[in-house]
Amino acid sequence: MQTLINHQIRLAARPVGFPKKSDWITSQSDLPKNSELLEGEILVKTIYLSIDPAMRGWMNGGKSYIKPVEIGEVMRAIGIGRVIASQSPRFKVGDIVSGSLGVQAYCLGDANNPHTNFVLVDPTLAPLPQFLNALGMPGMTAYFGLLDVAQAKAGETVVVSGAAGAVGQTVGQIAKQLGCRVVGIAGGEAKCDFVVNQLGFDACIDYKNTLLKDELKTTCPQGVDVYFDNVGGTILDTVLTRINKKARIVICGAISQYNATTAVEGPSNYLALLVNRARMEGFVVFDYVERYPQAMQEIAGWMRAGQFRSREDILQGLDNFPDALMMLFEGNNFGKLILQVSPE
Amino acid sequence: MQTLINHQIRLAARPVGFPKKSDWITSQSDLPKNSELLEGEILVKTIYLSIDPAMRGWMNGGKSYIKPVEIGEVMRAIGIGRVIASQSPRFKVGDIVSGSLGVQAYCLGDANNPHTNFVLVDPTLAPLPQFLNALGMPGMTAYFGLLDVAQAKAGETVVVSGAAGAVGQTVGQIAKQLGCRVVGIAGGEAKCDFVVNQLGFDACIDYKNTLLKDELKTTCPQGVDVYFDNVGGTILDTVLTRINKKARIVICGAISQYNATTAVEGPSNYLALLVNRARMEGFVVFDYVERYPQAMQEIAGWMRAGQFRSREDILQGLDNFPDALMMLFEGNNFGKLILQVSPE
Repeated sequence: MQTLINHQIRLAARPVGFPKKSDWITSQSDLPKNSELLEGEILVKTIYLSIDPAMRGWMNGGKSYIKPVEIGEVMRAIGIGRVIASQSPRFKVGDIVSGSLGVQAYCLGDANNPHTNFVLVDPTLAPLPQFLNALGMPGMTAYFGLLDVAQAKAGETVVVSGAAGAVGQTVGQIAKQLGCRVVGIAGGEAKCDFVVNQLGFDACIDYKNTLLKDELKTTCPQGVDVYFDNVGGTILDTVLTRINKKARIVICGAISQYNATTAVEGPSNYLALLVNRARMEGFVVFDYVERYPQAMQEIAGWMRAGQFRSREDILQGLDNFPDALMMLFEGNNFGKLILQVSPE
Repeated sequence: MQTLINHQIRLAARPVGFPKKSDWITSQSDLPKNSELLEGEILVKTIYLSIDPAMRGWMNGGKSYIKPVEIGEVMRAIGIGRVIASQSPRFKVGDIVSGSLGVQAYCLGDANNPHTNFVLVDPTLAPLPQFLNALGMPGMTAYFGLLDVAQAKAGETVVVSGAAGAVGQTVGQIAKQLGCRVVGIAGGEAKCDFVVNQLGFDACIDYKNTLLKDELKTTCPQGVDVYFDNVGGTILDTVLTRINKKARIVICGAISQYNATTAVEGPSNYLALLVNRARMEGFVVFDYVERYPQAMQEIAGWMRAGQFRSREDILQGLDNFPDALMMLFEGNNFGKLILQVSPE
């Protein structure tokens, strides 16, 4: 095995507002040969990296649900890769694993490192990108947010923003499986068409080209029982005006606010919670890690039965990471955004 | 029985911002003699009226948890009065009743009218003003908000705003009964002294004269598990920065925002809910009406045992209603604000 060179993208500065090119720095380093790996270590060649809204939060300093990426550190990213060297009995060369690989061509680390959290992937279950989408963190987020936090039930009206995105696709399709009326919110006609015609939502509101408040009245004649919020800002505030008694608002994310340089826009209409005896609740998917296998089995079952679709937007090349991240914040991706770093 | 004349205060206009004198109109009318009452009617002479923050909401048009007071209608108010004429088998002359009497010297109506909701009061149980305070709507609000909505538990830290007010007094004292650490937020040194030295809270933060954020750190060294919010605005936003994992924010009211002429100030820090897997939940006390007797028994028990105190701020005279309401919004009352309309 010849000497491999790792390419890495590191955080150079904490961004103010949208991340700029100068907030990143690239580095190269030699990787150890197989015989040089320490006991318990594995070397994984990155194939796919997941580009997630949560990344913006990881770039900020301060206390959060997970420690920040430090200045100079390799940017955190969840990915799928192939084991190319192993000194661990848990994984053998050729295995496909998922884990927090980082924005780098190779990930070297202890096979049992809880932060990296290497998990064996069964490539016969579904195409690999699915393990970063419906069978990965976005899918788990949708599953536990809708079923555990919102406790959506048959007959209820579920509204989800970012409907064509990684989490939104899965939220809506699981809600359909439950027997809910499902209305998406997405930006642009193409995404709305996809959500209704490919994913089977009952309706999808194009917030960029129609008046959300009016469209919510039309598409949710019985009001809103569950709102799964991925975006925050004005959309959250508008949906609050249409909630039903005992409604549940799941705060999954707020992509419209992550790059705010002034105070985050709080929901002015939060007193709708009082009038409607409703609740707004946040959650962090990592809390459900022990139940991921159960959720993956159920979603994979729907996939095999042809009752579940998904869409990925796959970009090529490690060096395109900064642009890929900006694409996400500009809403220019269509489906789960993934960066392919090497061939399968 | 000679002809009695009723004095009433009616809503003349929907206020913009703080209610003005011109938003009210007074009226007089003759009342029927006892023999002229219809079958099932009672005539109640108002003794005390409860002056509540919720009144501001009732003055607005539009859909809410209760129908608005219409223009020209007698202003809605919960009160205590004495039955002075009765054609109902439910109540006899001399009985003390509570109900939605309205801002008027006498309330005439069907004894079984669900909107008026006449309930017999046992004056031997506690002083009459208590039935508008700890044994009335504010007490019920505190009890069900803290126990049912927040599900506060022994050992947790409970913070309550409007701590010297009708709801706040009771929230804090019930939380102490539960074995919680209790921190109040109130305006001014006198209120804070009362809350700590008379009501037994562990601490009380004077938000007018200290820096709330710093004081929360000092007085809640273990963070905030339950925040019972009566005020909204900046105080809610600041407490959100100190909440613990799985915290519960009870949205009981938002007195700082009720007279806003621009958009209500939404909580900018609502994403603290996400990071902390926390929830913000609203409720309406009327939903618990069937369980009021149980709650009243429990609070009355603490009173008898000397473990529960309360303070009322009693103003005199029906015509002072508009000023009394403004006093509430200016935070100038000290304890549960009550208007005495006639002697006991």
